[in-house]
Amino acid sequence: MAQAQAQRRRNGNIRNGNGNGSQCKENDLLLLLRERSEGQGHHHVHRLNLTSSLNKGNNAKATIVTVLALAMAMLLLLFYSFSTSTSTSTRITSPSTTGTAYEALSVSVSPDSDAVINLDHGDPTMFEPFWKNAGDKATVVIPGWHTMSYFSDTSNLCWFLEPDFANQVRRLHRIVGNAVTHAHHIIVGVGSTQLIHALLFALSATATGHPVSVVSAAPFYSMYPGITDFLKSGLFRWAGDATSFKVNGSSSFIEIVCSPNNPDGTLRRAVLSTEAGKLVHDLAYYWPQYTPMRGPADEDIMLFTVSKATGHAGTRIGWALVRDADVARRMVKFIEMNSIGVSKDSQVRAARILQVISDGYELPDPDSTTSFFHFSRRLLADRWQRLRRAVEESGRFSLPQFSSEFCEFTKEHAETYPAFAWLRCDDESIEDCEGFFKSMKVLTRSGRHFGAGPEYIRISMLDRAHNFDLFVERIASLGLR
Amino acid sequence: MAQAQAQRRRNGNIRNGNGNGSQCKENDLLLLLRERSEGQGHHHVHRLNLTSSLNKGNNAKATIVTVLALAMAMLLLLFYSFSTSTSTSTRITSPSTTGTAYEALSVSVSPDSDAVINLDHGDPTMFEPFWKNAGDKATVVIPGWHTMSYFSDTSNLCWFLEPDFANQVRRLHRIVGNAVTHAHHIIVGVGSTQLIHALLFALSATATGHPVSVVSAAPFYSMYPGITDFLKSGLFRWAGDATSFKVNGSSSFIEIVCSPNNPDGTLRRAVLSTEAGKLVHDLAYYWPQYTPMRGPADEDIMLFTVSKATGHAGTRIGWALVRDADVARRMVKFIEMNSIGVSKDSQVRAARILQVISDGYELPDPDSTTSFFHFSRRLLADRWQRLRRAVEESGRFSLPQFSSEFCEFTKEHAETYPAFAWLRCDDESIEDCEGFFKSMKVLTRSGRHFGAGPEYIRISMLDRAHNFDLFVERIASLGLR
Repeated sequence: MAQAQAQRRRNGNIRNGNGNGSQCKENDLLLLLRERSEGQGHHHVHRLNLTSSLNKGNNAKATIVTVLALAMAMLLLLFYSFSTSTSTSTRITSPSTTGTAYEALSVSVSPDSDAVINLDHGDPTMFEPFWKNAGDKATVVIPGWHTMSYFSDTSNLCWFLEPDFANQVRRLHRIVGNAVTHAHHIIVGVGSTQLIHALLFALSATATGHPVSVVSAAPFYSMYPGITDFLKSGLFRWAGDATSFKVNGSSSFIEIVCSPNNPDGTLRRAVLSTEAGKLVHDLAYYWPQYTPMRGPADEDIMLFTVSKATGHAGTRIGWALVRDADVARRMVKFIEMNSIGVSKDSQVRAARILQVISDGYELPDPDSTTSFFHFSRRLLADRWQRLRRAVEESGRFSLPQFSSEFCEFTKEHAETYPAFAWLRCDDESIEDCEGFFKSMKVLTRSGRHFGAGPEYIRISMLDRAHNFDLFVERIASLGLR
Repeated sequence: MAQAQAQRRRNGNIRNGNGNGSQCKENDLLLLLRERSEGQGHHHVHRLNLTSSLNKGNNAKATIVTVLALAMAMLLLLFYSFSTSTSTSTRITSPSTTGTAYEALSVSVSPDSDAVINLDHGDPTMFEPFWKNAGDKATVVIPGWHTMSYFSDTSNLCWFLEPDFANQVRRLHRIVGNAVTHAHHIIVGVGSTQLIHALLFALSATATGHPVSVVSAAPFYSMYPGITDFLKSGLFRWAGDATSFKVNGSSSFIEIVCSPNNPDGTLRRAVLSTEAGKLVHDLAYYWPQYTPMRGPADEDIMLFTVSKATGHAGTRIGWALVRDADVARRMVKFIEMNSIGVSKDSQVRAARILQVISDGYELPDPDSTTSFFHFSRRLLADRWQRLRRAVEESGRFSLPQFSSEFCEFTKEHAETYPAFAWLRCDDESIEDCEGFFKSMKVLTRSGRHFGAGPEYIRISMLDRAHNFDLFVERIASLGLR
């Protein structure tokens, strides 16, 4: 039970109303039923209100009640076995009928209807099955005396960069063909978030006078404004949507270009002239599972992160490819002052993870268990198809459309499957789309955080299968009301 | 050879003039000699200038030269074996004679005399032998699919804190008795450096108007001013030495109290009234290897780091013990904005490392191989005795003196052995102590960075044995000139 509780804490969802710890202690039968259902990966909780009966203290009465309860439990278990097998098969093979299954089930049992599904963050747990299947070759073993020093390589401008991690970064970019690396310094960071901070410092530290303006075309990643402004730095300040920013003579600015864009998945180019400004290309999602590869990016400053590339968000490793040595040096200075370097353990692990992906594509016969991007792409394709169908059936929402393009990596025409669904509430009776989904116990992020309107929400497509399934069921069910 | 080169890069020192890679390729004999000497942990390089002879192309000549070279090599190996065994034994048992051995050796061979020794940073590689000896029990194994999520425990205020790491932190503090933890939240950070940033934000974010002044009594840790000012935040600003800071009515301030103090090892209390101000206790060095334990600290805000506690600087894990939930929440907010949490891999590893230390003290018969603090204390005691003797012989410098105190942890009177030597140049002919040591190819940090004068330097006592030995030899040799 402790393990099950820990797992619930870890999966990022808050579960309400299904009985709390003390109720469980009062009623072992309820506990038994709950655990059996959770063990199957489905959280259908069959509630028996026996507590008051059992508390009355009359032994004979209690015995009768217990026998009755056990009999009911047996019946419910039989029913449970039947209903679970039905809903599982319909859920996976035929998403369009899932809504019906949901409605049918909800009459008699409660199929996770009160579980809160948190799709606010882009927590990339969807990729776990690939890494479970990868087995030992993806495991890292770190002896107690390894990587104790602050230093990784004092001959490198980025002295805290593990050489093996750098090698695997260059190797993977070469295999995927999404970025050139030969003319660039690699700067490792605590996720690409720390690297954005490092870049704001590096690109503004030499400016004089007013703070440098930081802009990005709306809808922009919701963290850019906060990252820029939360310390009230005198070096830089958030200036909003790049498309409405007025370039003012010689005054400097930084434009962050996120491509494919978080939240809406579109490919982006800079909207401002680069004469007076500096460009940061946030390419966190420029990987083959999300979008067709159009050839290697070759920008002055490019950002990537293992979080979105491989799914290892907890490892907190990002990297920047930076052409100019002075910019790279100032980024290193920032990371020295901010955290005296970046975890070596995480770099060692990230190196292994990238290596497994690259090795998988250099085997003589890559298959679905060794080809990370193909595996992930299939999962995302399935999710997007199911989400689009459910959205269509609901008749209340719309999603961005993308044309298929030739992918230089897979050598075939491919669709775009963004890591987030940028969903619009077309139903005019819904004023606040985030609030509407919250009423369905689905946590999303309002368009307001992205420089857009409250009719938009951003929904993570990368959560675990069970949560995503529930989410699609809830959307589909709207069309049936 | 590649491995040896990588090791040289990693040890953080720059070695000049002892031949480079291409010379090594020309002369395998030199390589053999060099590797043999490095394999012994001593980098005495016996240079044979055979390159030009070997390049002349006359086979007969080359053969004669090669035979002569081999003969010379045999002689040198004999001499090397003798001199190494002599200097090793005298070095450890009688530092006062090490200088003589150094002088004698320098006549015929070059005992690392041109190696730059970098004792500027407090790189805690001294602890490596303990962890090598700990073997498998200190090893972490992380499968590819573990800790992929951003979240560690969503029921915790600090949602990115691994529960096992938190448990091991509380356990170690209980065993050592250096801090109370039951009334405190644990906030994990990318080293204690990120946590200082988080605290400056947390303690100033609610202030209005002017930036909050940040002070610390001189000599103060050299990074405090930079950490505070490098982003020109409007929330806080560095205001220098706490002892000369004028508390101005209701205006708020933050005093950082580092105890034992970096750089000078003294125990510290706040120097300012806490009525208007807030205190941050940086207790990075309050561990039994450095100073006698005077009982558990019970401050509102206390900072620790594995870097100084266990030697794992490369792991970049620190923790704060914070009594007030609002302060803790704002620190978490900072870490979300700064790096979206802290590496789980590093927390898993740090948990294992702390566990090994605690387990070592809960065995029935702890010994020198399982008692981390005892092991480390003995190493530091030996280093401090040798340094004090060499400094005394030189007649030019002085070091802080500490009285012995009862240690609540070891239950005996104990000396203070700080992680840094705060050395004063008493010789008035030396105007710039850092520059003087630099001329001896010893990199240290000038007192100027600590709010003190150029007659002071801070020297790391935690480097690898070989570097520390060379450093003490160089100081001792001064007395003989």
